[in-house]
Amino acid sequence: MTADESLPLFFAPKSVALVGASLQPEKLGYRLAHNLAQRGYPGEVYFVNPKGGELFGRNVYPDVASLPAGIELAVVLVPAQHVPQVLEECGESGVRAAIVCSGGFREVGEEGVEREKGLLRIAKKHNMRLLGPNCIGVLDTHLPLDTTFLPLPGPLAGDLAFLSHSGAICAALVDWARQEGFGFSRLVSLGNQLDVNETDILPLVAEDPATKVISMYLETVSDGRCFVETASKVSQRKPLIALKVGRFESGRRAAASHTGALAGEQVAYQAAFRRAGVEQASTIEEMFDWARALAQCPIPRGSEVAVLTNAGGPGVTAADAVEYHGLQLAALHESTQSKLRALLPPVASVENPVDMLATASPEQYRDGLAALLADDGVHGVIVILPPPPAYAALQVVEAMLPGIEASDKPVVVALMGGDLVSEARHKLRQAGVPDYRFPEAAASALAVLARRTEYLARSGEEPLRATDVDAEAVERVLAANAPGATGFLSQDAAEQILRAYGIPVAATRLARDLPEARSHAAELGYPLALKLASPELSHKSDVGGVLLDLPDAPALEKGYEQLMANAHRFAPDAEVLGVYLQPMIAGGQEVIVGVSQDAQFGPLVMFGSGGVEVEGFGDVAFALAPLTESDVDYLLESTWAGRRLAGFRNLPPADRDAVCQVLLRIAQLAADFPKFTELELNPLRVLSEGDGAWAVDWRLRLSP
Amino acid sequence: MTADESLPLFFAPKSVALVGASLQPEKLGYRLAHNLAQRGYPGEVYFVNPKGGELFGRNVYPDVASLPAGIELAVVLVPAQHVPQVLEECGESGVRAAIVCSGGFREVGEEGVEREKGLLRIAKKHNMRLLGPNCIGVLDTHLPLDTTFLPLPGPLAGDLAFLSHSGAICAALVDWARQEGFGFSRLVSLGNQLDVNETDILPLVAEDPATKVISMYLETVSDGRCFVETASKVSQRKPLIALKVGRFESGRRAAASHTGALAGEQVAYQAAFRRAGVEQASTIEEMFDWARALAQCPIPRGSEVAVLTNAGGPGVTAADAVEYHGLQLAALHESTQSKLRALLPPVASVENPVDMLATASPEQYRDGLAALLADDGVHGVIVILPPPPAYAALQVVEAMLPGIEASDKPVVVALMGGDLVSEARHKLRQAGVPDYRFPEAAASALAVLARRTEYLARSGEEPLRATDVDAEAVERVLAANAPGATGFLSQDAAEQILRAYGIPVAATRLARDLPEARSHAAELGYPLALKLASPELSHKSDVGGVLLDLPDAPALEKGYEQLMANAHRFAPDAEVLGVYLQPMIAGGQEVIVGVSQDAQFGPLVMFGSGGVEVEGFGDVAFALAPLTESDVDYLLESTWAGRRLAGFRNLPPADRDAVCQVLLRIAQLAADFPKFTELELNPLRVLSEGDGAWAVDWRLRLSP
Repeated sequence: MTADESLPLFFAPKSVALVGASLQPEKLGYRLAHNLAQRGYPGEVYFVNPKGGELFGRNVYPDVASLPAGIELAVVLVPAQHVPQVLEECGESGVRAAIVCSGGFREVGEEGVEREKGLLRIAKKHNMRLLGPNCIGVLDTHLPLDTTFLPLPGPLAGDLAFLSHSGAICAALVDWARQEGFGFSRLVSLGNQLDVNETDILPLVAEDPATKVISMYLETVSDGRCFVETASKVSQRKPLIALKVGRFESGRRAAASHTGALAGEQVAYQAAFRRAGVEQASTIEEMFDWARALAQCPIPRGSEVAVLTNAGGPGVTAADAVEYHGLQLAALHESTQSKLRALLPPVASVENPVDMLATASPEQYRDGLAALLADDGVHGVIVILPPPPAYAALQVVEAMLPGIEASDKPVVVALMGGDLVSEARHKLRQAGVPDYRFPEAAASALAVLARRTEYLARSGEEPLRATDVDAEAVERVLAANAPGATGFLSQDAAEQILRAYGIPVAATRLARDLPEARSHAAELGYPLALKLASPELSHKSDVGGVLLDLPDAPALEKGYEQLMANAHRFAPDAEVLGVYLQPMIAGGQEVIVGVSQDAQFGPLVMFGSGGVEVEGFGDVAFALAPLTESDVDYLLESTWAGRRLAGFRNLPPADRDAVCQVLLRIAQLAADFPKFTELELNPLRVLSEGDGAWAVDWRLRLSP
Repeated sequence: MTADESLPLFFAPKSVALVGASLQPEKLGYRLAHNLAQRGYPGEVYFVNPKGGELFGRNVYPDVASLPAGIELAVVLVPAQHVPQVLEECGESGVRAAIVCSGGFREVGEEGVEREKGLLRIAKKHNMRLLGPNCIGVLDTHLPLDTTFLPLPGPLAGDLAFLSHSGAICAALVDWARQEGFGFSRLVSLGNQLDVNETDILPLVAEDPATKVISMYLETVSDGRCFVETASKVSQRKPLIALKVGRFESGRRAAASHTGALAGEQVAYQAAFRRAGVEQASTIEEMFDWARALAQCPIPRGSEVAVLTNAGGPGVTAADAVEYHGLQLAALHESTQSKLRALLPPVASVENPVDMLATASPEQYRDGLAALLADDGVHGVIVILPPPPAYAALQVVEAMLPGIEASDKPVVVALMGGDLVSEARHKLRQAGVPDYRFPEAAASALAVLARRTEYLARSGEEPLRATDVDAEAVERVLAANAPGATGFLSQDAAEQILRAYGIPVAATRLARDLPEARSHAAELGYPLALKLASPELSHKSDVGGVLLDLPDAPALEKGYEQLMANAHRFAPDAEVLGVYLQPMIAGGQEVIVGVSQDAQFGPLVMFGSGGVEVEGFGDVAFALAPLTESDVDYLLESTWAGRRLAGFRNLPPADRDAVCQVLLRIAQLAADFPKFTELELNPLRVLSEGDGAWAVDWRLRLSP
């Protein structure tokens, strides 16, 4: 049996031994024994405790060695110092999967880290997979199997799976979900992830036929690229939702490039989740509001939504929320409006939101909803149902249910209230129609369905690859050029590398002294840009190291002296090689294109408004390299810098295609050469359509 | 009795007559009669119905005229066409306050509008105040008084007041709140607001000693300035929270200035709420999460927060939420850490968030919380309490309560779970300690408390006023200059007006032909800016109407021809007066300052990043004119354009004080002359400290 083949044992073992079962009801070892033995698990259950005895009608074995052969899963809940011994015994008995619930490892500091290393050695030796330590184990409500010590009554059976880096969140969630009336298929507490991590577990949970949606509480991911690869595959079959905590950082890292400064952990996770089709929730409630809709509703063909209400206020609230969540209010077809007019009192509103007035009967709800669902321009419906003054909410729900169940369009219900609507709520939950307390959450749920549709449309995409790139040329340049003290390559070396990947850069000449500058200038022609050449100064403009638009030779001479004076004054210790001359590339629009290497997810491409104020404006977007076509669209459409390429007021349209080419090529360069920790074109000057985009300043940094 | 003196009758009448009481239990008129007669109202209750009979032990009068004299409040629930007659009879009987619950008015279209006008005439004639029509009336849980037809059991008594433009929201909210376990002091459904509106009601609710916080569901406000004035007074005594719906607009209005285009209804409401100290919630749940904290907690001295938890995951979640909501994690004093170290196991975290581990006992929660509350650097505490593995949550709550109650710092509890924590929840609710299901809502509640502290600190501020302004000079210019076809004043007239209010503008000369341009240029000196002079072209750069940095006379001549050619080409129908010449004001930073007149709230000042792309970048903030000192700070601190005035990288610091002066003066100008519908300085060029800020282009538009 390979290590991977052991993984399914965590969910469907034929037999389980609990090492650390307790006969004392106040102990966790008792509660765990109870959950394992008394909650319907169909396999064999064995208990181990040196004191022996009998528990839930079973003999308690004194040690692992005494157990019958062939135990498939061990659950270990003994003090930390005894865990190595127990695992050794398990390994020797042929156990291939163990859940270590015990705490006292990495989470308690250095001593615990050492202890964990010991566990891992034992597991490797015996080809055994470990879940935990410091976790509350696994729960499958359908087998069923419960290796947790969670208090009764435990979760309802359902179709949502949950993976968690926090055991406390599991405990709270199970209790909360039962009160809210929704259930789980599988629940996995991952603990310290010494061996098995979220990425190992994902495919197993996805294979579970009872699981429709997988939700995750993540503090980090163990291997970013592997997570993205696995999650991308899983998410094509089943929706994934993550709540990623630790989003905020107590300060940006010091970074030499704008891209590095802006590319924090949070944006890297966002980019990774976007690529992998993982919806990122911002609260636990939002995660399960979304999960219920994704589990229960068909996905919509588009994002045009109708709102059906019996009151104006909640209708307006829903309309706000529809727009806020990126959906649109559908324009109802004239025939739909006619149907509604025939159905409703003359003063009802037959435009979207459709307000049937407080007198709306169950039949009007039913027929109004049917009219909306029959409209080709309506992709999904939000039904608003506050306690109706003249009917029971349950009557309304019963009238609507057949139509909802027969439709291939999603319907979500904002069932507003408490006790007065609780029967109706129960009915909806039974029927598998997602309900929400307020219109905002209902709209948010419809929006996640629309994003699922969009994701599925792009999920098969291959990354774009230019074929006319010369990786060998890059290798040659790297071999011939050592980076400067800060890790940055010289402007010339960087220029050659960019050109090798087909990224257009402005012609640049290094002049070591004024006569050389004059001679280059004569060749390049005026007007010129003049920049200080120093491998140690990455932000040249910060030290007055850039002069633009020099019209003639006298200006060049004056400029040369000025740059030298500025260098002397503002960066007296920097090595100055001379100056770079560049023909001015005037007009067009300025953007920034950059890549930084994220420790977790690898190269991360940034695009946005450039210039020195890029960090202040923050008009930037990120995507993982290499880029797909929809990544490029996303980078351009989600920034003002990208949208204005189409032209704005007196700003003429610019060469968007050229920007796309630069984006995909720099992403490819970074993906091909992970040793570039930062690449930045700032600015990239984008000229009129057909005239291309030209990097006029650039920085390439190598890892040490 | 004046009209205003009648208002208290809506809440504390000595007697109430229900016109439209019904003997049929399925009718709203029966339910209303029940709520009025059977729910403890201590005054006299009378019923009117032409059919007569007996209801709840009371004689039913056939008409209003038969009622005894001195009825203080009438509640009218008869078909719309009978309401005028009923109100006439009420007026003749001396009733001075009437709640019209009946629908069939403005909300049903033109016919209803006419009917409403009739009601208003009757009310004015009899000096009677009207609430509604189309409302569900008033509820006071303490008197108690219930004039609504809401189904039983109705709301719990509590300390939150709620005003609503939607009756359905009231119905849903009352039902939901009871299930959530919180209650109301007063509830007012405002309906169509034919007479009494939210601003009339606010002070009355604020006077209610049982009311601690006032929450409002608003679709619009009836008189913006009056609302701001009243709410500003009320909010100094009691916190106000609004959920404003209809936030999104189906498209920006066409507007001639950037300021006008960006100043939508939503930003006007935001500015108004900010000025009036009204917290703007984005969902019903958020509104009441906040309301409970504001009603129950002392306000903090600052925004440094400690988190006390027994589990890492929710602790990280809380830390994220603390930062997200604009609070900070307090750095714990060394003595606090020592206390915690003595209290907790060695592997617990004694830094913030304080993680006491899953074994945390009720005593550890109690003493840990006491240590945090005793720390001067801690202004408030979030306690995280998932179902503790080894204790009941109730035990933990009971241990902590005395400390929470004795403290003058706010403590909020994230009591995570469902049934396992329901006793603990009940205990907290009883004790008046706000609890939340998840850490995010707990942090959001602490944040609103911190904002309350900030608001109270600035709530007494007077608007800034410059005294060296010359309003008469403005009047003279206006008298002498008619605006152009688009409402814009000529550049010269606008310049004189700005100067009269001490706003520095670049010297500008109109030249009608080239010789005149040459002569102005000789006087002004080079380099020059040249702009097309046409009252019909407000965005000159859109038609190629601006040339900058002309170095000499030949450039001037060429430029002049070019502007004329551009005008001919791009705006052939525009009247062209000639060109404006301006000395170039170079360097510094560019910002935009504008004012537009909001239909509801009057002059609205905008500040932000200027240039032609202001609408794309959207780096702008708004405040109501005239401005207070904290308004000016807000405008500058909440925009990148304002923050970068302090300098950024190679961008030197600029004259922030000069910008403040321009802001307060343009706000004052707009407040003094409401006939200016749009004023815009774009760009305002801000030079180095001490060198001032100069408008180099400006637009002033008069209302037609």
